[in-house]
Amino acid sequence: MTTGVRRRMGVEERRQQLIGVALELFSRRSPDDVSIDEIASAAGISRPLVYHYFPGKLSLYEAALKRAADDLASRFAEPHEGPLGARLLRVMGRFFDFVDDHGPGFSALMRGGPAVGSSATNALIDSVRQAAYDQMLSHLGVVDPAPARLELVVRSWISLVESTALIWLDGRRVPRAELEVQLVHDFTALAAVAAAHDEELAALLRGLLAKEPGDGPFTDLAARLIALAS
Amino acid sequence: MTTGVRRRMGVEERRQQLIGVALELFSRRSPDDVSIDEIASAAGISRPLVYHYFPGKLSLYEAALKRAADDLASRFAEPHEGPLGARLLRVMGRFFDFVDDHGPGFSALMRGGPAVGSSATNALIDSVRQAAYDQMLSHLGVVDPAPARLELVVRSWISLVESTALIWLDGRRVPRAELEVQLVHDFTALAAVAAAHDEELAALLRGLLAKEPGDGPFTDLAARLIALAS
Repeated sequence: MTTGVRRRMGVEERRQQLIGVALELFSRRSPDDVSIDEIASAAGISRPLVYHYFPGKLSLYEAALKRAADDLASRFAEPHEGPLGARLLRVMGRFFDFVDDHGPGFSALMRGGPAVGSSATNALIDSVRQAAYDQMLSHLGVVDPAPARLELVVRSWISLVESTALIWLDGRRVPRAELEVQLVHDFTALAAVAAAHDEELAALLRGLLAKEPGDGPFTDLAARLIALAS
Repeated sequence: MTTGVRRRMGVEERRQQLIGVALELFSRRSPDDVSIDEIASAAGISRPLVYHYFPGKLSLYEAALKRAADDLASRFAEPHEGPLGARLLRVMGRFFDFVDDHGPGFSALMRGGPAVGSSATNALIDSVRQAAYDQMLSHLGVVDPAPARLELVVRSWISLVESTALIWLDGRRVPRAELEVQLVHDFTALAAVAAAHDEELAALLRGLLAKEPGDGPFTDLAARLIALAS
């Protein structure tokens, strides 16, 4: 907010405020289209003062991205209680909240582009993917390193979640609640396909499915697949 | 090959030779690690002569990428004959041949990085994805624009194919022939999940599955899923 009154802030407080303002702007439009002048104006300070705290737009972008990455990774944390399908569905809900809040910035980042393809931003993206992977393994009750086929299922499903969100953002032509359920189903479906080649994975999946309630998302999927196949 | 004999080449012939030499080098190692000196040496010409044909490494990289993209897109073409599962499996085989041939360059490109995240390279990647999407629609017998849920299934499956290949390249811990079959199964599985929300998609999928042979990949999957769910 620009109030006209410039309250004196400490260095760290001012940095955090600038990061918040920048994240808001970088989320709403493609980062390439956001200028330092706009950030300064939105923060109610002068352009030179922005440069006093951050050497340039890239460093401010990276700081904003770091905050967004920490926020997103924190949304993967879910208590180890109740059926797996319901846990995954809650995480999908929080993930789509994040995507909804940061749409244009999320698209620009994940699709790459002149301002966003630095090695620092790629490392941040990888760290969020790794946080998602670690959470999935812990909910599956599997110790890292996971067997190769399970690792492939989990990592490729995480990538499917990302790409589904990106496609959804491009027009929002399918209700997000439907996609959240669908992605939980997709995980079972991909795991079931891989389990066809791997008895260890099949045993793990049978154990997880046995704990699912009769009206949960996994049981619902199994019934629908059987109906389709017959 | 450096033969010591510098045969005179026409301008276009020399450009094409340099693109071929560069593509070979950019495929085997991360493009960031390939120098113009190496390309000149591998082509048997001087460094200044390389610059005579291409203004810099980026333009040579983009030309090599264009050739690779055309090659990859041509591999998606498949006769509209026989069951869909067998067609998809043949395309997956040719896709993994490509990934195998261009491993390090493919990884570097798809993971992004300082030398490879230009808007021209992103546009090329998108054009290959679009070629894959168009081929899939034509094999499914669907006219563009496809219904929203079908578009989502096809585009997200294409992204799953990409990420599966990238994960496979990182250690090659699962046999590629297994992944090729698995990705064909994954398509049915993702389509079946989406069909649970969409009667039009369910009808399309039932029509496709009805044409599959009793020993084809889709029938095999259905049997395995039923066994797992029971």
